[in-house]
Amino acid sequence: MFAPTYLDWNATTPLDPVVREAMLPWLDGRFGNASSRHEYGRQARAAIDEARARVAAAVGADYTEVVFTSGGSEANNLFIKGAAATMKPGVVAVSAIEHPCVREPALQLRRQGWTGREIAVDGQGRIDAGDWQAVLAERPALISVMLANNETGVLQDVAALAREARAAGACLHTDAVQALGKVEMDFRALGVQALTVSAHKIGGPLGAGALVLDKRVELAPLIAGGGQERGLRSGTENVAAIVGFGIACERAAARREAEAQRLTTLRGELERGLAAFGATVFSAAAPRLPNTVFFAADGIDGETLVAKLDRAGFACASGSACSSANPEPSRTLLAMGVPAQTARGAVRVSLGRDNGTDDVARFLTTFGRLADELKNLTAMAV
Amino acid sequence: MFAPTYLDWNATTPLDPVVREAMLPWLDGRFGNASSRHEYGRQARAAIDEARARVAAAVGADYTEVVFTSGGSEANNLFIKGAAATMKPGVVAVSAIEHPCVREPALQLRRQGWTGREIAVDGQGRIDAGDWQAVLAERPALISVMLANNETGVLQDVAALAREARAAGACLHTDAVQALGKVEMDFRALGVQALTVSAHKIGGPLGAGALVLDKRVELAPLIAGGGQERGLRSGTENVAAIVGFGIACERAAARREAEAQRLTTLRGELERGLAAFGATVFSAAAPRLPNTVFFAADGIDGETLVAKLDRAGFACASGSACSSANPEPSRTLLAMGVPAQTARGAVRVSLGRDNGTDDVARFLTTFGRLADELKNLTAMAV
Repeated sequence: MFAPTYLDWNATTPLDPVVREAMLPWLDGRFGNASSRHEYGRQARAAIDEARARVAAAVGADYTEVVFTSGGSEANNLFIKGAAATMKPGVVAVSAIEHPCVREPALQLRRQGWTGREIAVDGQGRIDAGDWQAVLAERPALISVMLANNETGVLQDVAALAREARAAGACLHTDAVQALGKVEMDFRALGVQALTVSAHKIGGPLGAGALVLDKRVELAPLIAGGGQERGLRSGTENVAAIVGFGIACERAAARREAEAQRLTTLRGELERGLAAFGATVFSAAAPRLPNTVFFAADGIDGETLVAKLDRAGFACASGSACSSANPEPSRTLLAMGVPAQTARGAVRVSLGRDNGTDDVARFLTTFGRLADELKNLTAMAV
Repeated sequence: MFAPTYLDWNATTPLDPVVREAMLPWLDGRFGNASSRHEYGRQARAAIDEARARVAAAVGADYTEVVFTSGGSEANNLFIKGAAATMKPGVVAVSAIEHPCVREPALQLRRQGWTGREIAVDGQGRIDAGDWQAVLAERPALISVMLANNETGVLQDVAALAREARAAGACLHTDAVQALGKVEMDFRALGVQALTVSAHKIGGPLGAGALVLDKRVELAPLIAGGGQERGLRSGTENVAAIVGFGIACERAAARREAEAQRLTTLRGELERGLAAFGATVFSAAAPRLPNTVFFAADGIDGETLVAKLDRAGFACASGSACSSANPEPSRTLLAMGVPAQTARGAVRVSLGRDNGTDDVARFLTTFGRLADELKNLTAMAV
């Protein structure tokens, strides 16, 4: 089978073989409905409980604070819509660089009388200090600021934001989907009221995510019914996916430090190579995820380059993979004040545990060749 | 490994080995995000498209009418809340025997000014003709009536109800989760505006379901974000589960007729045996699923019997598995006018493709022995 070099680990990750092994019995003889009161059901329930403890440990939360969902998008929607449903309409503020699964539910709240408000970022993609204070002055009831951006990899100082948000009486949520397994994470130390994580970004399966939730926060369920997950998320639990999520969390936490060091070195090699070709790395001066490089080269269209890289055997992204049906330039870059023309050149390489120095070297050689071809084409067209 | 005889196929089903084989590559080298514009992403997208065609074919719908969700509970919530969000508050009517994942979202609509209304059933668990006419006279905007009940197995004449609902200007949804693969199903012939199906009830995996939706019905998404599923259900698609759902639909449809005949015969053997022990089968005079027997024996508590059967190596259910955290007697039976005392005796045996005559014979022997023990205990206690 043709296997292109995978450089798109922020979009999704291959299943960790150890995670897959742990899942397989639950796709075989251990198939019970966790609500059933017989041997098959009890086995499923026990496996979910174990996975819940593993996820809780990975994020520094209590076992009882983990609400399993079908993934990150559902968890983000659950928090924003679920918390809003228990409050009087007020101000909901989300950063200008949130994933659409945070931005869109916040916008949907307008129909229920809420005021939607974006929080500006600076040229590096960090929350703009002035606008943050302006937002707090508006006394928002709900705020969501992501821990790590999916495109630039920029990290926000969520712990500091949470202190100020709390003082201002706001409930702060953070989308930590891209941060999990890549940077240290502790629900208590962050001090947020809620945090979203997802399995398939850390070597776990598609189909499992969680909202980690301070129990003092009241939520209405998005999916009501049988009353699973303390009534916050009904529906027969996806046991295999939840088991896989638990193991993936444990493994990601165990290798995080060593892997972060290794990836930071690889990222350095990649960025030095890109600089030699005259490419600019976005958010280069901000604290970032160790695995993510979002860059552009003058006069080269990102979509075209990614298509050429694909044909040459390298899988990477031009914008946010989750919304790549959208041909608009990256909202994150536009929010950072990057001109649309430059933003259209953006390419994201996100590295992962299977990538090594050789992948980066081969990528750079191919990138150099393709970039030259594209520049010549552009020059001829002019 | 200890493997009790599984007689709880309405709660969930073991994964069909052919379905599992089809899923495994998607838990291995084919791991792409279906929104990614590279080889891995395109493979995932193509697999989802194929699965969509398979699900559509199994329910007699068009390819474009299938909206994948994480399961039946989500699909039911999506329809009820999603359709209501695009309408002015009115009357929402659901049958008195709906699964909680239909009843609860309908009740939640009251917060938005809707009037929730239950539709009565008769002593056999079929929609009460008089109350149905009374409901239609109230001009409900939304109605939901399940195709087959999860506990009794009773089938409703949804096609006839749909004709009358349409004439009354109502939008009719049917929860067909228990009907899929067990009775013939055709979205066009039913004439409903929406229909819910789920993979794990038909030998497919947990984590996949679908709302089949007439495109003239406007819906707001429950999970907003990246815009997957025509904007009706955002979130990275669970490719392996969706692939499994497609194959499971195809296989369930192919074996449906022969399997229905075989299970009807088995059900007859089971019911004759139960009658010999003096047990009563609920809804025995109504059209029912071929695999489901919901019964009670005088003076025996259902929960206790199910626990004893479990220890004796038989997995069956006392109430609806999905809400068995609830110790209340079956709502379905109460709605049918069954006294609470009798309803507390209810036990459900639901058969499936791995069960044969031998399983039924062994079950009956054990049931007879346990029922005698329990009756003697009750007699002593009195």
